[in-house]
Amino acid sequence: MQVTSQDIEWMTRALRLAARGLYTTTPNPRVGCVIVNNGQVVGEGAHLKAGEPHAEVHALRAAGEQARGATAYVTLEPCSHFGRTPPCADALVNAGVSRVVVAMQDPNPLVAGNGIARLQAQGIVVTVGVCETPARALNPGFIQRMTQQRPYVRLKVAASLDGRTALANGHSQWITSAAARKDVHHWRAQSCAIVTGIASILQDDSSLTVRDVNTPRQPLRVIVDSQLRIPIDAKVLQDGNALVAYAQGDAAKLEMLQVMGVRTLQAPNAQGQVDLAALMQALTALPCNEVLIEAGATLNGAFMQSGFVDELLLYYAPKLMGHTARGMFDLPALAQMSDVRDLNILDVRQFGQDIRIQAKFQF
Amino acid sequence: MQVTSQDIEWMTRALRLAARGLYTTTPNPRVGCVIVNNGQVVGEGAHLKAGEPHAEVHALRAAGEQARGATAYVTLEPCSHFGRTPPCADALVNAGVSRVVVAMQDPNPLVAGNGIARLQAQGIVVTVGVCETPARALNPGFIQRMTQQRPYVRLKVAASLDGRTALANGHSQWITSAAARKDVHHWRAQSCAIVTGIASILQDDSSLTVRDVNTPRQPLRVIVDSQLRIPIDAKVLQDGNALVAYAQGDAAKLEMLQVMGVRTLQAPNAQGQVDLAALMQALTALPCNEVLIEAGATLNGAFMQSGFVDELLLYYAPKLMGHTARGMFDLPALAQMSDVRDLNILDVRQFGQDIRIQAKFQF
Repeated sequence: MQVTSQDIEWMTRALRLAARGLYTTTPNPRVGCVIVNNGQVVGEGAHLKAGEPHAEVHALRAAGEQARGATAYVTLEPCSHFGRTPPCADALVNAGVSRVVVAMQDPNPLVAGNGIARLQAQGIVVTVGVCETPARALNPGFIQRMTQQRPYVRLKVAASLDGRTALANGHSQWITSAAARKDVHHWRAQSCAIVTGIASILQDDSSLTVRDVNTPRQPLRVIVDSQLRIPIDAKVLQDGNALVAYAQGDAAKLEMLQVMGVRTLQAPNAQGQVDLAALMQALTALPCNEVLIEAGATLNGAFMQSGFVDELLLYYAPKLMGHTARGMFDLPALAQMSDVRDLNILDVRQFGQDIRIQAKFQF
Repeated sequence: MQVTSQDIEWMTRALRLAARGLYTTTPNPRVGCVIVNNGQVVGEGAHLKAGEPHAEVHALRAAGEQARGATAYVTLEPCSHFGRTPPCADALVNAGVSRVVVAMQDPNPLVAGNGIARLQAQGIVVTVGVCETPARALNPGFIQRMTQQRPYVRLKVAASLDGRTALANGHSQWITSAAARKDVHHWRAQSCAIVTGIASILQDDSSLTVRDVNTPRQPLRVIVDSQLRIPIDAKVLQDGNALVAYAQGDAAKLEMLQVMGVRTLQAPNAQGQVDLAALMQALTALPCNEVLIEAGATLNGAFMQSGFVDELLLYYAPKLMGHTARGMFDLPALAQMSDVRDLNILDVRQFGQDIRIQAKFQF
C-alpha cells in the first residue's frame, strides 16, 4: 500500500506522543500510537513507564469500537511476545484494525519482525518504514542496547571558544549560560546514567541530578573512582542512586557506601584504573539505554579512546580562557593530520549566547 | 519625510551595488547608489576603486536628464569636499535630484554631515539612516579608521572542536575543509593587510595571498618577526607586497629585504618584541581599513591582550586533536571565572562540515 502524506502526518503525531515518554520509559523504548478511522483520530496514546500499558493499549482503549476498520500508526513495531503486558499485535488484531503503519521494526530480538508477521497473518495490511529516521532518533539507546549490547553514549563538554573547560586552578562555574545548562538537564533526564570522574566530584561536589526540567525519574549517577577516594558526604551519593566504579579501595569505605545504598563495581584494568569496557558492560546489564558522560579532560579522553562514545554535545560559551586553562580531551599525541579522527556535525544551535554543536563519530 | 518600504527596497539594492567594491575600494569606503524616478531605476552605480568615480557619479551619468526630480539612494553620505574627484553633493544638486536618501552619515571628519547640509541648503529633501546597520557593516574598517584612527581587526583561527590549531609537531594542513578555507580567502580579499607571525611562516611557508576568490588586489602581507628570522626565499616575500615588523635584526638582511621591495618597520617594545601598538599605528597610516590576523597561539594571544582585536572568525572542523596539540590563544592564567572576558556571537554558519563562529568583543 502506498504511503500517503496523511500517513506521514499521523505518524508525526504518533512520534510527538512517543516523545512524552522521553524521560520515563527506560529501559523500555519510547513509543506513540494514533488510531485513525475515516480521517478522524479515534484514539491515541504513549508508553510512559515500564510495567504500564504500551502505547497501542492506551490508544485502543480510547478508540473502543471505533478501532474496527481503522488504521493504527505506531512508532515502533507492535510487540509479539508476553512481557509484563500481553502482545500488542494481538490486541490490534482483536480490536479489528484493518491497517497498521509502523515507523520501524523492533530491534528487540524477541520481536524483530514477529509482530509485523503476526499482524499480516491475520490479514492486516502493514506498512513499515514511515518516518523511520525520526523514529530511530527517539530511541538510540534502546536500539543500540538491543543490537550491539551496549548503551548509546553521549559526552557533554562545556567550554570556552578556545576549547577550555576550567581555569588552571579548576574554577569552571559557570562557563556556559543558564540556557545552556538547562539544556544539559534535558539530556540528563533522558539518560539512564550520568557518568563522571572522581576529579570532577572532588572539584565541584556536584549532585549531577536533573533539576531544570520536570521529571519523576532521576538517572543513576556513576563515579569513576579508581582509588575509591570519594568522600562519604559527597552530594552525588546522598540519595543512594549512585554507582562507584573502582579498581581498588578500602574495605571500610566500601561497606559504608553499601550501607548508604550506593552500588559499587570493582573493575580494575592492567593499569590499576577502572576498566571502562567492564563498566559499560555493567551499565548495559542494569539495563541502561542512554548514558551521558560529564567529566574532565582525563576521563573524557579515556572514554574517547575506549570507542564507547557515540555522540558529542559540545557547548561553547563566547569567552576565551587561554592556554593555561584546562582542555576538553586528553588524548595521545598524533604524528599526522591524517591520523585525526573525523566526526560528523549533527546539529548546531544557540542557547542564549552559547553555541551547542552536536557531533557523531564516523564509524 | 516618512521612510517607505520602497525606500528600504531601493537602499537594499544600493547596498548590493556597494558590495561590488568589497575587495577593491580600499582605502575608500564601499558605496552604492541607485537613482529612481517615478518608481523606475534610471541610473545606478558603485564605487569600485580609489581614484575612479564615486557611486553617485556612475549613477548620475547613467540617469542623464532622468535624474531631474528623481530620488537618489546612497549607502554613504555624498562627499562635500574636493578629493581626487569633485564633491558628489554638488553633482547631485546640479543634476536636479529632488530627494536624497542616505544610509549613514560619512564618518570622515572632512564630510561628517557637510554633504547632507550642502544638499539641504539647495532645497533637496534628505532622509538619513535608512538601512544604517547593514551600511555600517559594509565599512567597519573605514569607519573605525575615521573615528578611532585604527583599523578594524579580525582574527581568524582554524581549529578542531577541542580548540586545537596544530598537532604537537606543528602539522596543521589541513584542519578545516576546502569550503572553510575558501571562505577565509573572501575575508583576506576584503582586508588591506594580513598579519602573521614568523613561527607560522617558518612552519608552513604560506604565501598568504588571496587565491580562492576573484580579485585584482592583493592585500599587504605583514610578518611579525622580532628577531628578523624570516628567510629571504619565504613565499610571502616573493611579490614584494609585504611588510616585516621587527625589533632588532641583521643589517644585511634588512638591506636584502628592501632591495626586494619588502617594507620593514623597526618597532621594538620593552621586551624586545614587536610593539603591536606601533605596528597598528603604521598600518593605520598606510592606510589600512581592515586587517586580518592569521597567526599562531603566541601572536594571537599577544594581539588579544593588546586590545586591537575587534572580531574573531573561528572555524571549527569536526575533529578532536587532544591536549598535546597546540591551542588557539596563549593568554595569562586567570584566577576567577569572572575575570574571563566575554564576547558576543555575531553569526554561526556551516561551511562544508566545518562551523564558523563569528564573535565580537564586548567593549
